[in-house]
Amino acid sequence: MADTVVAFLGVGHMGRGMVRSLARQRFQLRVWDRTAAKAAALSDIAEVCATPRAAVAGVPFVMTSLADDHAVREVTFGEDGILDGMAPDAVHLGASTISRKLGQVLDEAHRRRGTHYVGSPVLGRPDAAERGELWILAGGEPDAVLRCRPIFEAIGQGTIATDSAAQAHLVKIIANFMIANTIEMLGEALALGEKGGIAPASLVDMLGRTILGSPVLLGYGARIARGEFEPAGFRLELGFKDVSLALAAGEELRAPLPLASLVHDHMIEAIAHGRGHQDWSALAAVAQAAAGLSVKA
Amino acid sequence: MADTVVAFLGVGHMGRGMVRSLARQRFQLRVWDRTAAKAAALSDIAEVCATPRAAVAGVPFVMTSLADDHAVREVTFGEDGILDGMAPDAVHLGASTISRKLGQVLDEAHRRRGTHYVGSPVLGRPDAAERGELWILAGGEPDAVLRCRPIFEAIGQGTIATDSAAQAHLVKIIANFMIANTIEMLGEALALGEKGGIAPASLVDMLGRTILGSPVLLGYGARIARGEFEPAGFRLELGFKDVSLALAAGEELRAPLPLASLVHDHMIEAIAHGRGHQDWSALAAVAQAAAGLSVKA
Amino acid sequence: MADTVVAFLGVGHMGRGMVRSLARQRFQLRVWDRTAAKAAALSDIAEVCATPRAAVAGVPFVMTSLADDHAVREVTFGEDGILDGMAPDAVHLGASTISRKLGQVLDEAHRRRGTHYVGSPVLGRPDAAERGELWILAGGEPDAVLRCRPIFEAIGQGTIATDSAAQAHLVKIIANFMIANTIEMLGEALALGEKGGIAPASLVDMLGRTILGSPVLLGYGARIARGEFEPAGFRLELGFKDVSLALAAGEELRAPLPLASLVHDHMIEAIAHGRGHQDWSALAAVAQAAAGLSVKA
Amino acid sequence: MADTVVAFLGVGHMGRGMVRSLARQRFQLRVWDRTAAKAAALSDIAEVCATPRAAVAGVPFVMTSLADDHAVREVTFGEDGILDGMAPDAVHLGASTISRKLGQVLDEAHRRRGTHYVGSPVLGRPDAAERGELWILAGGEPDAVLRCRPIFEAIGQGTIATDSAAQAHLVKIIANFMIANTIEMLGEALALGEKGGIAPASLVDMLGRTILGSPVLLGYGARIARGEFEPAGFRLELGFKDVSLALAAGEELRAPLPLASLVHDHMIEAIAHGRGHQDWSALAAVAQAAAGLSVKA
Repeated sequence: MADTVVAFLGVGHMGRGMVRSLARQRFQLRVWDRTAAKAAALSDIAEVCATPRAAVAGVPFVMTSLADDHAVREVTFGEDGILDGMAPDAVHLGASTISRKLGQVLDEAHRRRGTHYVGSPVLGRPDAAERGELWILAGGEPDAVLRCRPIFEAIGQGTIATDSAAQAHLVKIIANFMIANTIEMLGEALALGEKGGIAPASLVDMLGRTILGSPVLLGYGARIARGEFEPAGFRLELGFKDVSLALAAGEELRAPLPLASLVHDHMIEAIAHGRGHQDWSALAAVAQAAAGLSVKA
Repeated sequence: MADTVVAFLGVGHMGRGMVRSLARQRFQLRVWDRTAAKAAALSDIAEVCATPRAAVAGVPFVMTSLADDHAVREVTFGEDGILDGMAPDAVHLGASTISRKLGQVLDEAHRRRGTHYVGSPVLGRPDAAERGELWILAGGEPDAVLRCRPIFEAIGQGTIATDSAAQAHLVKIIANFMIANTIEMLGEALALGEKGGIAPASLVDMLGRTILGSPVLLGYGARIARGEFEPAGFRLELGFKDVSLALAAGEELRAPLPLASLVHDHMIEAIAHGRGHQDWSALAAVAQAAAGLSVKA
Repeated sequence: MADTVVAFLGVGHMGRGMVRSLARQRFQLRVWDRTAAKAAALSDIAEVCATPRAAVAGVPFVMTSLADDHAVREVTFGEDGILDGMAPDAVHLGASTISRKLGQVLDEAHRRRGTHYVGSPVLGRPDAAERGELWILAGGEPDAVLRCRPIFEAIGQGTIATDSAAQAHLVKIIANFMIANTIEMLGEALALGEKGGIAPASLVDMLGRTILGSPVLLGYGARIARGEFEPAGFRLELGFKDVSLALAAGEELRAPLPLASLVHDHMIEAIAHGRGHQDWSALAAVAQAAAGLSVKA
Repeated sequence: MADTVVAFLGVGHMGRGMVRSLARQRFQLRVWDRTAAKAAALSDIAEVCATPRAAVAGVPFVMTSLADDHAVREVTFGEDGILDGMAPDAVHLGASTISRKLGQVLDEAHRRRGTHYVGSPVLGRPDAAERGELWILAGGEPDAVLRCRPIFEAIGQGTIATDSAAQAHLVKIIANFMIANTIEMLGEALALGEKGGIAPASLVDMLGRTILGSPVLLGYGARIARGEFEPAGFRLELGFKDVSLALAAGEELRAPLPLASLVHDHMIEAIAHGRGHQDWSALAAVAQAAAGLSVKA
């Protein structure tokens, strides 16, 4: 896939890693970011562009990795947005965690214009992005998805196919809801154990050695046990956004999600106590405080 | 450990498997069960006894595998109970899932009488008990725990040490709370996905192939996706008892457990709809019904 | 206040009643509604206008009584919206139940243009609007609020002053959250009583005769006891919108509202079962169904 | 009813008031309390007895006003308990807030012995007991209930008839669940308002002047607004017991009570923070703390 051009919009922690992985596979890259310095920092491996529309002109693949629905709407439909600037038949790969609804809207908007939207949110942290070891959740028109394969292979260790862009985004939302719930569960379980005299690190170790172990549980369990909520691997306020997306999907699809509601409430409590910038494992501090434990960090 | 005598009280699904695993390691066994036929069915490998007290007379190890706090109290403190019949310095291994509080009470009662209580609840299903592949959570006086090792090796694949009998039982309670919460989470996540057009089996597969996979999640996920709630691997009404034990521990230790409360409420709903005898994965039917999905089974 | 002109935008069940109450006090009325027939039905007492902007031209008071944030935004800021058509120093009275945030936005937008926004959501049903017996929650610049008094006196039995437009809307949101919670509480309490053999109507009667009685509790209690969820006094889907506004306010102000979350989830469940058009007391059907009771209606 | 003898067991805050109200109506009183000094303090108007059994010998009416299920079981079935000491056909009036289940057990035990149990829990505070202005929830065999009327008239302003002793206790439990939920609701509503700049006292006033007012809501609302959680009118740990009774009734009758679960969790949180001895309106401090408000008191 050498020499294929990809316009990459949004080069924060995740986007930057994906750009580097694409560069290693000899894709030609054009980058843009709302914060000019972030794009400039990639000038050794990518052409820096002044606007989204300038970046996508004549390019077959456009990838967005942005903060939220609002940012994706701006970059797609706003002034200097990409929708009216993409080449016929070009593909927009959406790697952001956005609402199921917006996934649907993007799909329809691109179809009407003769371009394509492939929902392609990713699972994994910035370091996995750098190493090209993300998991990609992919959904869209089959031909368009097929054309994206070399890109997915450059950034990921595997692709999981869904039936539509909306579904790809929904699976990502569900995955993050499950991680958030796992953190809440750890928070409650470890607080209960601690009040019963069991050191959190020991309890995580016990649980991990038996049938309960999973990478997510062990990773967050260890972090909570250490009370090490900074620096953030994934900021609590971003996780809050994602749980809000799960609730929005549930509201739209008429599926109540009481666990997500509970986690959402506890995240508001965490944010009200100044933890929005901490790692989302800091959600466990709410359970610790509720139990009257001295809270870490 | 050939020839060491173990009195085994309660030979239901779990107890029976443990008795067989002990017999394979050439322990001498004496068994009793409230339901005489259950004990009689083991007469080829064990001496069948008429009462708990008769079973434990002169025996160095007594193991209980009973339904709940009430049954353990009866067998220990009741008429013909074991407490007044055990040999000096003998050890009572408690394999039942009972309250942290009762674990404490048993520990104190045995100490006063010159016998020993070792909390030893197990993780694993009846088939793991048959194969000698349980995990044992062990806690009690160090010397007594040490003496139990050959028994643990006969029934389990590993032992996890805790600091006291009460802690051993608490860890078991926490583990089951976590499994119950995982089932609830799957129920909500799969219902949301299904309303968004994603087949539950596909979603379980997607989640399992990425960072979220754990044996518990995959096993229950597959079962919920199939809607196969009978026959029960672990009855919902037993799971309900265990979540109640988690809430009781939280109440006693002053640690609120809102996730456990939520799961508890949904289990009452499931029981109110006649699902108490089904597998506890049937908890997911509550989320399905709430979302207006046609419920499986 | 005879001869003062009021432009009234949105003459559904509530708006229509307020228009009639204003007409009785000899206000001159100009009306507009998105559904032309609704406006036309008031042609005997009001001048029917073709657009919001046409209605407000040269008029000192503009009152909006619309479905939600979206409708108020459209009528205010949209094409043919009122913001650019109101006379200098004119007052916009917002009687709709909208978000605290939009209350703030409207206040700022009007200030910038030299007009005024007075948050004036109302408590009471359509029949109270017809009789001029609403309660008005009023907030805005003191002078503007003062000028609205004759209007408030025409439509209401009393005015409750708050410090700002945003606060007036917030109080209305809180009041509706409390009513929704009271309905949920009744649903759970009556289901519990019914399973214990106490007829719901008797229980409502018992509670009402002692210290617990309040008009809201008794009114909804009686309705739930009769299982009479249609026709709707206030549609469940509107109540759902209001509880969503409470959660949005909580999210914005960093105040977790677990009761509202719980009610919100149960309302989604009710809507998923086709109860969105019923009276919001139908929320109680969720508690009845959860308890395994045969649900009314 | 002069000269009728009543044995009164348990003369704490509530019992003492009832005894005084009975004395004013010229009942002859015999009193017992586990804490001898409490009984002795009433020696001017009652004969002080050494044991429950001594108090009830030959007496037609026995009234218990005790802390919880455990105390009632002790006094009824324990050594020196009343069951084996009551005169044939005598009536046991149970004024304590106990479980529905125990109400049933007492009813059956008395029937077997040829005596009678009348569930008669009361609504109202100690000052209402002193003034003879309680509400009595009465249930039992119709003849026995009829015979209790003079007693009810001496202590109360009204009697609410239910169909059985179990139902009388269940209604009391439901009433206290509703009060606890109202306090939680106030906690959340006032915290939300306060974060939006509305003084709690103003908000209580606003709500009370409109359709939402009820004595319970206004009374607790005012107390929460003042942040005056001591001295306790009703201790939070007693309210916790009552909400636990609601959950136990729901568990037994298969009626999930998610609002009660939520309140229960927040009460554990309050107790974990040392508020068990405060007034149960201190439950609102949990919502305040969660919102990041500086908590009163």
